[in-house]
Amino acid sequence: MHAFRAVDHLHMAQALRLAERGAWTTRPNPMVGCVIAHGEEVVGQGWHQRAGGPHAEIFALREAGARARGATAYVTLEPCAHHGRTPPCALALIDAGVSRVVAAMLDPFPQVNGGGFTLLREAGIEVQDGLMAAQARELNHGFLSRIERQRPWVRLKYGMSLDGRTAMADGESKWITGPAARADVQRWRARAGAILTGAGTVAADDPSLTVRLEGEGGEFLPPLRVVLDARLRTLGRPKVREGEAPTLYLHAADATPPATPGVEFAAVPGHAGRLDLPAVMALLAARGINEVQVEAGAGLGGALWRAGLVDELLLYQAPQLLGDAARPLLSGIGIDHMADAVHLDLHDVRQVGHDLRLLLRPRR
Amino acid sequence: MHAFRAVDHLHMAQALRLAERGAWTTRPNPMVGCVIAHGEEVVGQGWHQRAGGPHAEIFALREAGARARGATAYVTLEPCAHHGRTPPCALALIDAGVSRVVAAMLDPFPQVNGGGFTLLREAGIEVQDGLMAAQARELNHGFLSRIERQRPWVRLKYGMSLDGRTAMADGESKWITGPAARADVQRWRARAGAILTGAGTVAADDPSLTVRLEGEGGEFLPPLRVVLDARLRTLGRPKVREGEAPTLYLHAADATPPATPGVEFAAVPGHAGRLDLPAVMALLAARGINEVQVEAGAGLGGALWRAGLVDELLLYQAPQLLGDAARPLLSGIGIDHMADAVHLDLHDVRQVGHDLRLLLRPRR
Repeated sequence: MHAFRAVDHLHMAQALRLAERGAWTTRPNPMVGCVIAHGEEVVGQGWHQRAGGPHAEIFALREAGARARGATAYVTLEPCAHHGRTPPCALALIDAGVSRVVAAMLDPFPQVNGGGFTLLREAGIEVQDGLMAAQARELNHGFLSRIERQRPWVRLKYGMSLDGRTAMADGESKWITGPAARADVQRWRARAGAILTGAGTVAADDPSLTVRLEGEGGEFLPPLRVVLDARLRTLGRPKVREGEAPTLYLHAADATPPATPGVEFAAVPGHAGRLDLPAVMALLAARGINEVQVEAGAGLGGALWRAGLVDELLLYQAPQLLGDAARPLLSGIGIDHMADAVHLDLHDVRQVGHDLRLLLRPRR
Repeated sequence: MHAFRAVDHLHMAQALRLAERGAWTTRPNPMVGCVIAHGEEVVGQGWHQRAGGPHAEIFALREAGARARGATAYVTLEPCAHHGRTPPCALALIDAGVSRVVAAMLDPFPQVNGGGFTLLREAGIEVQDGLMAAQARELNHGFLSRIERQRPWVRLKYGMSLDGRTAMADGESKWITGPAARADVQRWRARAGAILTGAGTVAADDPSLTVRLEGEGGEFLPPLRVVLDARLRTLGRPKVREGEAPTLYLHAADATPPATPGVEFAAVPGHAGRLDLPAVMALLAARGINEVQVEAGAGLGGALWRAGLVDELLLYQAPQLLGDAARPLLSGIGIDHMADAVHLDLHDVRQVGHDLRLLLRPRR
């Protein structure tokens, strides 16, 4: 670990803020921000906007122009070393004459993975990494999960009552949470690579699972809608395939997908009518999905939980009671004694309209 | 409504703060605070400390001495007009020569109920009321409930998981919430006139239901422990009658209480083994109980809810999952459709240790 100065934190914090502007558009690439500075004076800023477009460093170097010479470049992720859809950023930084590069973290992407730092150092540039690494990891937990664990970051989203109920006994669930909470959900959807649901939810609610950012503007890539439907019994519910967003049905090997223009089908291993959930996640990671938002019932949520595939719970808790006959949050998570209770850490809590929003992660 | 000035709000806010110092000791009397001032300058302050002891005005007048003459007295509740265990405060204010009295609200206690204001006005003192009345009502909601509704203010307290569960299926519940939440509960107990529980909780947990303010000091009146036990089947669980706090068993008319020194028994109407809950609350109000804290299971909590007797829910929500086999929050509150969902207002939310504390009240 290097001894960083206050001015380093100042610029890296700004680079992290810049990076996050790409949250809805950079997929499957990581979000990256870059600040080029002489001391406190910023001469260039940029962030990665879209896969295939210029990286953060390129935008910042363009803004800095000749003033990049002798400057320090702050990047939230190691500059790339490979010729992908764009030339390597490490070379661009060398060419521009920066004298020092401060990175928040190494890029574990196999074609980078330290290679960018090596290129820079070989060119005589001072390289320091690890500044605000925790924040940088948090920013790209989806991308990092895909690269490091070969599965997406999985977020379970529920709207629920005070007594932990997500729907009435007959499945009725409109609306537990208020309009502000429902609008907030759209912003979380926009940053997910996929919205995943189960056949039960499709059958009961006929959801569209699209991103609707009313009046907010903001470009986003429509997330892939993924329906786990082992026996393909919900094809009569068309909303989930309508609109611009792509849809992927995952089904058992013995189900036969019909020819449906514009809709994808893929078979996934499973048994007894249940798809193998780690295989589902591996498939989604292989397609470049960094972050999955699960919007499903207690059955699928509970099964993901049992499979150890849940990274965070996003709970919108409405100040109301639905009673003990209503549907539970997660089914069958198999707890018989207090000693087996699943502990989570409260990562964030805030009021959204009349509801509370809780973001929790399993305590590791 | 009078036009109050900023200085009036300043002193009344202080009088309200002073009043609350009596929260653990004034029962069954209301909390009252008093500030005596000339303009911004405070010359006397006081609060009611114990039933039978001097009222707030008397403490403030003693401190003010001769400087009370020509001053304004700010009181959170109408000064009393009757000779109770102490002489009427209205007369003391008149004798001291205050020229103006600002009260937050009228005292609905039948022996006051405007009589204090009348005495003051007849003595030529300017009287204004209604300043910060909402805060004053909030402060004494227990006392006001007893006087105006002839029943105590009823608070249901639960420790629960994220998924709204209060115990495992077999009743195991130690400990869902953390030590900070459990210590916080003690402070809420200290302000209640009674802690009420059911036979099920006594049978399962053998609770002591005393106030334990470890290391905090602070005097308090031990709340009455009330056990609803129609058939007196939990007498084998002695903890709830041990220690200094008094205990009252409420039972059905056909149950025969044994001779148990130091323990009270009272019969309450009921049918089919269930006590009539409005009758229970009327009985407690008649005994001078302003505020009841219910610490019981889903059955009694649900029954109180159905009877319309719940004024607030105090929920400590631990960041853990107990699963759908665990015990629900409230049983049988009879909701079949979303349209019947019970809406509450979130009155307060804060983090207490690792847990969240929510204070909610039914939306009226």
